[in-house]
Amino acid sequence: MTDLLTLADIEAARDRIAGKVRRTPVLTSDALDAAAGANLFFKCEPLQQVGAFKARGAANAVFALGEAEAARGVATHSSGNHGAALAWAASLRGIPAHIVVPDTVNPAKRANIARYGANIIVCEPTMAAREAAAARVVAETGATMIHPYDDVAVMAGQGTCALELLEQAPGLDLVLAPIGGGGLISGTATAMKALSPATRVVGVEPAGADDALGSLRSGVLIPMDHPATIADGLRASLSERTFAVIRARVDDIVTAPDDATVEAMRALWEALKITVEPSSAVPYAAVRTGAVETRGLKVGIILTGGNADLDALPW
Amino acid sequence: MTDLLTLADIEAARDRIAGKVRRTPVLTSDALDAAAGANLFFKCEPLQQVGAFKARGAANAVFALGEAEAARGVATHSSGNHGAALAWAASLRGIPAHIVVPDTVNPAKRANIARYGANIIVCEPTMAAREAAAARVVAETGATMIHPYDDVAVMAGQGTCALELLEQAPGLDLVLAPIGGGGLISGTATAMKALSPATRVVGVEPAGADDALGSLRSGVLIPMDHPATIADGLRASLSERTFAVIRARVDDIVTAPDDATVEAMRALWEALKITVEPSSAVPYAAVRTGAVETRGLKVGIILTGGNADLDALPW
Repeated sequence: MTDLLTLADIEAARDRIAGKVRRTPVLTSDALDAAAGANLFFKCEPLQQVGAFKARGAANAVFALGEAEAARGVATHSSGNHGAALAWAASLRGIPAHIVVPDTVNPAKRANIARYGANIIVCEPTMAAREAAAARVVAETGATMIHPYDDVAVMAGQGTCALELLEQAPGLDLVLAPIGGGGLISGTATAMKALSPATRVVGVEPAGADDALGSLRSGVLIPMDHPATIADGLRASLSERTFAVIRARVDDIVTAPDDATVEAMRALWEALKITVEPSSAVPYAAVRTGAVETRGLKVGIILTGGNADLDALPW
Repeated sequence: MTDLLTLADIEAARDRIAGKVRRTPVLTSDALDAAAGANLFFKCEPLQQVGAFKARGAANAVFALGEAEAARGVATHSSGNHGAALAWAASLRGIPAHIVVPDTVNPAKRANIARYGANIIVCEPTMAAREAAAARVVAETGATMIHPYDDVAVMAGQGTCALELLEQAPGLDLVLAPIGGGGLISGTATAMKALSPATRVVGVEPAGADDALGSLRSGVLIPMDHPATIADGLRASLSERTFAVIRARVDDIVTAPDDATVEAMRALWEALKITVEPSSAVPYAAVRTGAVETRGLKVGIILTGGNADLDALPW
């Protein structure tokens, strides 16, 4: 068993990436508060570098490398935002990045990767094909593999978002974050339980990609082979490393169906005036359906990314 | 000749509306900077209360009223955002608001007004019909007319946006703001010329609604009868009060055609992840077309509002 992620890891990440990532704003909306009967505090990572919280973990991982290791570059496989984030962080450090993407990646996310001059390698949209392609490029170049979530430096970086939220919206009763591979929820729960133990931390998954819920209930990691959800950032399976943190520190996991996610996404665009991608809208969808009880509570909701395809909006 | 708006008016507005309006973030984008060869600082008023800078002027006007006057309510005619802003400000003070809107108002903006419990009065989409309907409701109720821009308190409130921008992005070479009725550009130019006289202030109009340009060139106020632009927030004509400030303090006026505005709008959504409405995109459109020279400069651009109709995006 690996050691669990610690608050010290997250605080070190915060110091390492200060001035590189943005302190994103927390937005509120009278209309959304009235609809929920709650006070909702939206942490707006769509306004982060590369349009997603993934910039935090990628920057921490890239800048934690030693000089010689860094010079050989970094590599990853990613459905999009982590790939863009790693390309961005590598360009910031002036080192090569090799990004494996499935051939189903949405055009906005692919353009986001290409912008930072990364070497893009296209493969079939299965986890096996992605991992094989990434292993190949690592073997060929000596690059360091930076996994999208199964990496302590990445998990620690994602946790810096919660450190900011704690300062921007103190006294939260509840924090909601989506679960894909579990990097964000791991960092979030670790920061919260250390600094604000009275705050409940609930993860939200698409109903069609609920491996974390199944794993938590059964007590064993159940990988997910055929996710079926519009939330393309949340199709990954947990790793042992993220599952261990979730079991220890996440209070509950709930799900939201895709139709509720699309309605939530649109409601967020209209009320907050930011372009949240489907994965970002999953936690607020659970508020709207009542899958998580928020009435009368102060609720922090992490909006994770804003790279929606403006030619294929789902409403 | 009325006295021109002063910095003292704007500073008093800032103090009066503190804690009611938001200090909106300034966003930057590597991609947009690279495209322009400039450093662009986007002041994000779509993230303001009611989704537009109009909250500033409306709040200042409403909270400047004496108790007895306020109790009789406020009224206005507005193509949308000022109406919503006045409804919001009135609800904040707990007084009635009567809002005259043209029957062509977009649904998102109308819903934005209705949300705050205002009395909505629909009329034909001409300035004459709007003014007549507003005069009628004022006569019937004793409400105070709060004009969308021909009002010193409103102009002063709009200028508070520039005070924040000066703190958030010091040392700007150039500030760009759109011109509709001239309230925002009046407040912006007044604040800038007083506090940062080396900063050029350039107003941008839709090519199909260029009354301010025509008025500035000819030296006399030329009202605009048939504006033809997608930028529904910029179809109004200057007033003598805003024209006087523009003549004295605005360095230049340029225009942008609607096709450039639509492209600029989409580029802003993609790069900044915020939903800017067409009127908001007009100044950045002028950067893209080269109508205003920005190469090598530090440029502040006021993004004015985010109430786009998500069912009728123009691309």
